[in-house]
Amino acid sequence: MTDRLNAAFAVLSDLEEGAPERVKANLDAFHPDAAEVVLGFAFTDVLSRDGLDLRTREMLTVGMLAAIGTAPGQLEFHMRAALNTGVSREELSEIVLQVAVYAGVPACMNAISAARKAFEA
Amino acid sequence: MTDRLNAAFAVLSDLEEGAPERVKANLDAFHPDAAEVVLGFAFTDVLSRDGLDLRTREMLTVGMLAAIGTAPGQLEFHMRAALNTGVSREELSEIVLQVAVYAGVPACMNAISAARKAFEA
Amino acid sequence: MTDRLNAAFAVLSDLEEGAPERVKANLDAFHPDAAEVVLGFAFTDVLSRDGLDLRTREMLTVGMLAAIGTAPGQLEFHMRAALNTGVSREELSEIVLQVAVYAGVPACMNAISAARKAFEA
Amino acid sequence: MTDRLNAAFAVLSDLEEGAPERVKANLDAFHPDAAEVVLGFAFTDVLSRDGLDLRTREMLTVGMLAAIGTAPGQLEFHMRAALNTGVSREELSEIVLQVAVYAGVPACMNAISAARKAFEA
Amino acid sequence: MTDRLNAAFAVLSDLEEGAPERVKANLDAFHPDAAEVVLGFAFTDVLSRDGLDLRTREMLTVGMLAAIGTAPGQLEFHMRAALNTGVSREELSEIVLQVAVYAGVPACMNAISAARKAFEA
Amino acid sequence: MTDRLNAAFAVLSDLEEGAPERVKANLDAFHPDAAEVVLGFAFTDVLSRDGLDLRTREMLTVGMLAAIGTAPGQLEFHMRAALNTGVSREELSEIVLQVAVYAGVPACMNAISAARKAFEA
Repeated sequence: MTDRLNAAFAVLSDLEEGAPERVKANLDAFHPDAAEVVLGFAFTDVLSRDGLDLRTREMLTVGMLAAIGTAPGQLEFHMRAALNTGVSREELSEIVLQVAVYAGVPACMNAISAARKAFEA
Repeated sequence: MTDRLNAAFAVLSDLEEGAPERVKANLDAFHPDAAEVVLGFAFTDVLSRDGLDLRTREMLTVGMLAAIGTAPGQLEFHMRAALNTGVSREELSEIVLQVAVYAGVPACMNAISAARKAFEA
Repeated sequence: MTDRLNAAFAVLSDLEEGAPERVKANLDAFHPDAAEVVLGFAFTDVLSRDGLDLRTREMLTVGMLAAIGTAPGQLEFHMRAALNTGVSREELSEIVLQVAVYAGVPACMNAISAARKAFEA
Repeated sequence: MTDRLNAAFAVLSDLEEGAPERVKANLDAFHPDAAEVVLGFAFTDVLSRDGLDLRTREMLTVGMLAAIGTAPGQLEFHMRAALNTGVSREELSEIVLQVAVYAGVPACMNAISAARKAFEA
Repeated sequence: MTDRLNAAFAVLSDLEEGAPERVKANLDAFHPDAAEVVLGFAFTDVLSRDGLDLRTREMLTVGMLAAIGTAPGQLEFHMRAALNTGVSREELSEIVLQVAVYAGVPACMNAISAARKAFEA
Repeated sequence: MTDRLNAAFAVLSDLEEGAPERVKANLDAFHPDAAEVVLGFAFTDVLSRDGLDLRTREMLTVGMLAAIGTAPGQLEFHMRAALNTGVSREELSEIVLQVAVYAGVPACMNAISAARKAFEA
């Protein structure tokens, strides 16, 4: 594994214990370069940057994924990751309610479903 | 004006000086109930809630608007509002780069245009 | 319960018998304020307004949800609600075909799946 | 011109006087088949169908375009077309406010801008 | 069946053996005109046109569906159809990785799930 | 400049003469790392990969951007880039018509506007 990929997995491990192995297996089964290209960019090039801590970045990721609305499994994962990086349940709930303002009530309702699962995980 | 609407304008004034008058004139020219319905919900019912400070909420709003990508003028406004509520230029820049991960490079490029205008405002 | 929330549940009950209890349980399990914030806005502040009857509003909701495409469960609910508020199967079918024009064939195909389930409910 | 295209232009003329000539010139400048393929489908195959009158269809089109949010010029056109086919200003305003519920406040604000232009046209 | 519908089914059969029967049954169960309106437009009016071969069109369809992100079942179908019309697994994998650039990593991850299923079909 | 960034600019130069200077100036004015993070990923990590030639990749980019619909300036740029990498006007027109099927007529109409500008450039 390249240093860039190792750094990506270190971030992913901070998001959820066991996530690197699971995500790597999924990406490797698709294409041998996928982990490097996708995770190297997302987690090493961007999320590891200074200027915003991982906890704030996960709040933003939850807000963006809930607003976009096309990746419910990934939204649920990042809600768990937000909790794992120090976001409180109260803060996560406020993000979910704010989604109603900027992306509409259906997006908020979908985020509520994801939050309920993340809270029970 | 109702208390609910007054509370909404107080938030809006924290986002940008002079915004309440400008937004009210726009909404009133459309429909006499629009300010109450739209701003009462957005700013009084949701953004004024405890649990997240306005600075964090503006970071989230910028992330969501950049990810959705259909309201460039409002994205630029909330970038200025983010700066006005204590978000640093460095933090705003990091949000913009993170948009590339979750919403793609075109959304990031649009956010860069908005950020450049907000930085120059 | 506040008057605003009671009014919201009255609308929701017109959309589908038994819906208020089910929706309230879901929202309460997420956050004690969610029903008031989300349903108070959606059903009391907006859908209860004069100027459009509930039947026409449900036609619009079906069209918007089908066009957005990210809330299949809510689309199916509002298709049943449309039928419950007096929209005919023929009218609902015409809305679904019109979705193909403005949101594309995949959105129309998704709406066809939702309509078939609503017709069989 | 084919019968299918003639029928499409008849609908388009009901939406706005002078629209057929303007739209035809735009599409012909792009590709000789574009008017037939695009307008034949939209206006003859779908919008001319029985089961929903043109006035109701235009309300739906406005709702869908406002919810999708990527075609501001076409949204403004269909707001004028809605008024031309018998939708009242009050009804159009209610559609715009309902957009806030299902697609979020930014989509509603964009629709307000379009409505103000359509009201002044 | 009309000639237009027969031509549509001929294209659909090239995309996947057995697809015409399955798609026709689904559409007929919804509305007797749906197959003609939807498939006649999609497959006869557009996809059968000269100027792009079906293999290239399927590559484009996969890219567009992955970017839009709201029709996972149809994305998986068109990935199988792409393979059936001569797109190689390597080419399909490259399209999936390119989705990360233009629509973001979550859209790419969804496309990876669809591709893995299509590869195993 | 890093090798990764040099490689990105080489691709960008193939898309349109003079684009590297213009894009670099825009990104540098926003943040000193933006060109490396965004272009290094898009053009070096992904678009330079084997398995799809640049001409096919530009066809896909045009299809995806037209389907997403939130970056009209970038769509117009990639239409010019498609022509510059060997896509014919006829092929580009067919992509635009296919957008109507998968993303709807409004997205197609927006793509027609972009194509007309690219053809005249």
